[in-house]
Amino acid sequence: MRSGHSLAFQQFEDVLSEINITSIKSDEPEIEKFLISCERHSDLTKIKSPFGMEWNAESDWEPDDPSEVSSGSCLILPIPEDEYSGKLLRSVGYAESEFAASNYQFLNDGTFVLTTSYEQSIAEERIWFVSENVRCRSSILKTSAGSGILQASFASEVRIIKK
Amino acid sequence: MRSGHSLAFQQFEDVLSEINITSIKSDEPEIEKFLISCERHSDLTKIKSPFGMEWNAESDWEPDDPSEVSSGSCLILPIPEDEYSGKLLRSVGYAESEFAASNYQFLNDGTFVLTTSYEQSIAEERIWFVSENVRCRSSILKTSAGSGILQASFASEVRIIKK
Repeated sequence: MRSGHSLAFQQFEDVLSEINITSIKSDEPEIEKFLISCERHSDLTKIKSPFGMEWNAESDWEPDDPSEVSSGSCLILPIPEDEYSGKLLRSVGYAESEFAASNYQFLNDGTFVLTTSYEQSIAEERIWFVSENVRCRSSILKTSAGSGILQASFASEVRIIKK
Repeated sequence: MRSGHSLAFQQFEDVLSEINITSIKSDEPEIEKFLISCERHSDLTKIKSPFGMEWNAESDWEPDDPSEVSSGSCLILPIPEDEYSGKLLRSVGYAESEFAASNYQFLNDGTFVLTTSYEQSIAEERIWFVSENVRCRSSILKTSAGSGILQASFASEVRIIKK
């Protein structure tokens, strides 16, 4: 369940989505191919626990056809710098649909904070677990100058483990 | 702007609310009166920066009269234990409408985390600033046993300073 808040217009968007996360082996050819495409081939040996993400979302902002599903997928490659921080490469970004390099850090209670500078905006995402199988995810979209907040969103996500 | 997620039923609640926060002097009689009523008079000298909070909320879960406003107010008394943690006394709790004593801590990025055990439930609230005048607030309601998540909610809040 995901809620978007458009602060300037005080508009809510309610979204139901399904996200599939699949771990990928480090030696899968698609990883090397992606790194070459974004000119980061030298990072190949530094990647740890890469994974793929797919999503299908139904938004109440699709008045013509509320059951219309928007979907997508991306490849996510973590590059740890130390135990608590590092970089994350994504084939598709959160705020803009292009390759994105983010910085991540873990706070002292385990909250994961991801900051991404896009061409037009800066995104700050946070993920924290509230129980074994429920996590919360918030994201804020700022203007590149950093002072204006364009959008806030929040998702509560229930993990379903497929065997 | 506040969104509630009822996880079991996948129901969204969208709320627009106005919150007024007013600092109160430590020697105001209402503070002592409240402490006596909850048998915590000995805490009187430990209180730092007490304040009052008032809210007026319009929810889309009021189909009969969407403009109906629910409102309330409470007194909030912080009792720091050290620079990063302490207790918070509230005359009205978040999850249950009764006196509540919470534990708070600040994470290493300044995020404020408040945990309250009520009779029937446990609430975890988080507040963090995303710019000078915009903050996010999330809250999770768990069963007292702690494993079931009843509700998640998220608010994006814009500060309006009244002079």
